[in-house]
Amino acid sequence: MEIIQDVSAQGKSPSTARISLVYLLLLVVTIGCFFGIQHLGEQLPGQAAAVSTTASTPAAPSRLHLLPQVLLALIAIIVTGRLFGAACQYLGQPRVIGEVVAGIALGPSLFGRISPDAMTFVFPQNISPILGVLAQLGVILYMFLVGLELNSGLLRARAHATVAISHASIVTPFLLGAVLALFAYSRYAPAGVSFTSFALFLGVAMSITAFPVLARILTDLKLDKSELGVIALGCAAADDVTAWCLLAFVVGIAKSNLQESVRTILLAGAYVFLMVAVVKPLISSWLSSRKNTDLSSRLAAWILVAVLGSAMITESIGIHAIFGAFLLGAMIPHDSNIAASFRHRLEDVVSILLLPTFFAYTGTRTQIGLLSTTSDWYFCLLIIGVATAGKFGGTVVASRFTGLDWRTSASLGTLMNTRGLMELIVLNIGLDLGVISPILFAMMVLMALATTVATTPILQRLLSLRVEAASQ
Amino acid sequence: MEIIQDVSAQGKSPSTARISLVYLLLLVVTIGCFFGIQHLGEQLPGQAAAVSTTASTPAAPSRLHLLPQVLLALIAIIVTGRLFGAACQYLGQPRVIGEVVAGIALGPSLFGRISPDAMTFVFPQNISPILGVLAQLGVILYMFLVGLELNSGLLRARAHATVAISHASIVTPFLLGAVLALFAYSRYAPAGVSFTSFALFLGVAMSITAFPVLARILTDLKLDKSELGVIALGCAAADDVTAWCLLAFVVGIAKSNLQESVRTILLAGAYVFLMVAVVKPLISSWLSSRKNTDLSSRLAAWILVAVLGSAMITESIGIHAIFGAFLLGAMIPHDSNIAASFRHRLEDVVSILLLPTFFAYTGTRTQIGLLSTTSDWYFCLLIIGVATAGKFGGTVVASRFTGLDWRTSASLGTLMNTRGLMELIVLNIGLDLGVISPILFAMMVLMALATTVATTPILQRLLSLRVEAASQ
Repeated sequence: MEIIQDVSAQGKSPSTARISLVYLLLLVVTIGCFFGIQHLGEQLPGQAAAVSTTASTPAAPSRLHLLPQVLLALIAIIVTGRLFGAACQYLGQPRVIGEVVAGIALGPSLFGRISPDAMTFVFPQNISPILGVLAQLGVILYMFLVGLELNSGLLRARAHATVAISHASIVTPFLLGAVLALFAYSRYAPAGVSFTSFALFLGVAMSITAFPVLARILTDLKLDKSELGVIALGCAAADDVTAWCLLAFVVGIAKSNLQESVRTILLAGAYVFLMVAVVKPLISSWLSSRKNTDLSSRLAAWILVAVLGSAMITESIGIHAIFGAFLLGAMIPHDSNIAASFRHRLEDVVSILLLPTFFAYTGTRTQIGLLSTTSDWYFCLLIIGVATAGKFGGTVVASRFTGLDWRTSASLGTLMNTRGLMELIVLNIGLDLGVISPILFAMMVLMALATTVATTPILQRLLSLRVEAASQ
Repeated sequence: MEIIQDVSAQGKSPSTARISLVYLLLLVVTIGCFFGIQHLGEQLPGQAAAVSTTASTPAAPSRLHLLPQVLLALIAIIVTGRLFGAACQYLGQPRVIGEVVAGIALGPSLFGRISPDAMTFVFPQNISPILGVLAQLGVILYMFLVGLELNSGLLRARAHATVAISHASIVTPFLLGAVLALFAYSRYAPAGVSFTSFALFLGVAMSITAFPVLARILTDLKLDKSELGVIALGCAAADDVTAWCLLAFVVGIAKSNLQESVRTILLAGAYVFLMVAVVKPLISSWLSSRKNTDLSSRLAAWILVAVLGSAMITESIGIHAIFGAFLLGAMIPHDSNIAASFRHRLEDVVSILLLPTFFAYTGTRTQIGLLSTTSDWYFCLLIIGVATAGKFGGTVVASRFTGLDWRTSASLGTLMNTRGLMELIVLNIGLDLGVISPILFAMMVLMALATTVATTPILQRLLSLRVEAASQ
């Protein structure tokens, strides 16, 4: 562009005075002219026929109105998440716990307690769906990234183990949850809910493993690519697919619509088969055939479309959208450049902006204040105990069966016991269905939090033990 | 992690048969147990007291309901945007035009024409606010990136030129717009609108320059860092701030609330001063004091918070949120590592996902079908002519005054004549206020599109001419 600079250098640069004069003249002339035009215009007849001026843009005011609220909410979410996350890192917990707690703290459980008005000011009801969608998009993209990281090779090597462990780690807590239902039904079940739905739901709620949180803990502990990490992710994935199918089944029962739930399970199976049998080979062969290995923005766009599409399919099948995203991610070889660079591009926006929104959104719908009496708190402890016994116990026994050593089994059990936000999603569904009461909901939320917080310290202890054992 | 692998290798790996047996047993036992528990549970008394189960989570159903729709809409937006963008690149136009056209095509003007049902299926009314917020976030982040790229050094060198040109390029189209109002008022002004508001609004609408589109055209033509590019961006920025202040003023008049608009202008001025006089020096000194120059995810999070905050401030002041984002971006030295790496992290999500959403969102609220008679089309052409004469003419004259050569002036005039989506935002506001009628709205949209499409070919011609001139 030297050309222009030369030219402009040659061109005599005008003095400030001259510019200002021109400028002033312009203004005066402008205003003068406008008044002239105005004077002429005032005599003109206005149009008689009334014209609908708002019909075509009904959403405009809402948008102009919503934006500042959304900005404020996002700022509050990010800032709180960062602060709590930093605090957790300081306490030796992975920052994800901090972000989860931050989310709950931003809700009625703490922020709403301190000042309900302030909470409704920062998180007004009308932006809730927007935060919800942002949150969901965040989890979808995040789960895709998790899928991308999944080393399916290592997973396949231990497929038996994975499947057996994951099913054991579903069955045990499921049964214990059902047993718990016997004690909870009379006191905590909402009116007019059949014991069957109640027990089924409690069973499912107990057998959830928080895939995203588990994945983040593994990442934070740099274990996500280790064999333990891979088995854990595999089990958690299998767990979740099973659990969501069970959930679909329970939802079916609760809505007294069996075909619906059977259909969901069949379709889910068919989709998984399609992806593994058809899509995966296609991707692999295409990747190996490609010349340039780097990711163009065009390709990135189409990958994004594929992710959203797969998520939409699973969502419309009836299992959660995140499985479609995760499944597609798992179909792409984790060691391909595409995986690496796509991950690099998305990572920040997801972890900085969208995931905290997901945590906050779920947190704003959780009210712990409902636990009033001591017996409530005892029952809450009982729930935590039963959940841990079922998930941890079941996993450990099964992993021993499949020939893993004690410490790996224990670590696996600890990891699988992580409920986190996934549990909260399930609980919200249950609450919407009216299968559980708000107080039971709150108890289960505490259970989810307790099991999640417990994971890292125990895990670190176990791992250090194993390292010692190995070093001897 | 060799340790685990060793251990697991030592651990006897069990046969498929045994696993399957265990697995089958598990299932049978589970189902058996559950029926047992169920049998016990059926005798239990249900809870009498009714418990509100939905109160605490009002937004859940809407979210579960909205997600698939949003996914579908986003897929449609990205795919259409890519296709139209590719087509435009093939035709030698920058892809942004394609994305703009794609947005309008997805709206009632084309898609809605072909099949209204299909359009309402893909873009139902209830997700409109969500797309709106996504679109706004996209523009905010994009404008921050544009600000980051702004070379304020080069800009300051030509400050006089910039200010004079930008004001000339506002005043001329503003006056011509007001004159046009004399002819449009009786036919196209909605009933019950004072000539003053009508003329003022038309004036402002004529003097808009589409900063984002202009910036993208400059980027696409690799001109964004050239002197021409910098002056154009500077003028466009100045133009827009002025235009939005004028708009705030017009809105004030239309709502017959003068203090409001004066307040807006004063606050905007104060905020800009604060940023330039206080924030900019602070950032520069902090940057120079930093040891490690790379961008941690922690820092990125805080930058994002700052961007959203600045956007929120300008939005609540009354000028559009994007100015806060742009202003903050302009305060950060464009050649710092921070700018580069932050840009690199955001770029893709913004350009692939969010900007097309912005184009589509605005497009869905534009209906060109309203132009029925020939005289309507003639008037539409008149509008295009007047808009171009005002913006292009005004800019060229002023740039000659400030000592730029003919070709640079002409290029600048062509660039400043780009209206693009910014115009559509203004028009939507006018439509919401009832200052212009839907048909005039549609005409102005066509004007915006025409001036935008015309820019690149003319510009390329001018630039090649200049290169030839230089090479002689």
